[in-house]
Amino acid sequence: MSSQQQSAALDGWFQALGDPARRGMIDRLCRGPASVSELARPLSMTLSAVVQHLQVLEASGLVRTRKDGRVRTCHLETNALEGAERWFAGRRSLWEARFDRLGEYLAEHDEHGKPNKKR
Amino acid sequence: MSSQQQSAALDGWFQALGDPARRGMIDRLCRGPASVSELARPLSMTLSAVVQHLQVLEASGLVRTRKDGRVRTCHLETNALEGAERWFAGRRSLWEARFDRLGEYLAEHDEHGKPNKKR
Repeated sequence: MSSQQQSAALDGWFQALGDPARRGMIDRLCRGPASVSELARPLSMTLSAVVQHLQVLEASGLVRTRKDGRVRTCHLETNALEGAERWFAGRRSLWEARFDRLGEYLAEHDEHGKPNKKR
Repeated sequence: MSSQQQSAALDGWFQALGDPARRGMIDRLCRGPASVSELARPLSMTLSAVVQHLQVLEASGLVRTRKDGRVRTCHLETNALEGAERWFAGRRSLWEARFDRLGEYLAEHDEHGKPNKKR
């Protein structure tokens, strides 16, 4: 995946996850595949609104759906969720590296920024 | 934090992160605090557009800013990024638990779903 494709994927994932109903649908799908009506059951919204949220999730790549006869079954794309999680792990490693360098600097310098004398 | 506050925080974090310019600003702030003009430098957009993105990041709680004299300095709120990362870790533990149960079931049953005889 090019960095441009990766960035577009992150756009889609985060935009899709910025809504409580869509996060609720992801929660349900973590427990296993579900039909559209199973996804709709706990949500107090019309089936048409549920289908719209599902389309956002599917377009982002977080969910895939498959039609078996008259029932559409929804599955979680765990790879996509893991990709989004990796973005956070990458940022964390950046700021942790900075805190480590800051810690080293403070250990090696006095409060005026002068190198500590070797004891 | 109540679950309603937590959900509102997740809405704000993910909506803020669903934009490549705002993610670029987060990347920069992982390396240390920066002024608004430092944040703007690598971005090909007007300062006013940068300030608007910064306001979205600040409203979401991912970034805080402080005015020192005439310079506004931006800092990363690592707690907020860690909170968003925890959401992914929570989902992952749900689906991993399901895969574990599925693996146990498959190990204990034959291809017709009948329990395996003890050997």
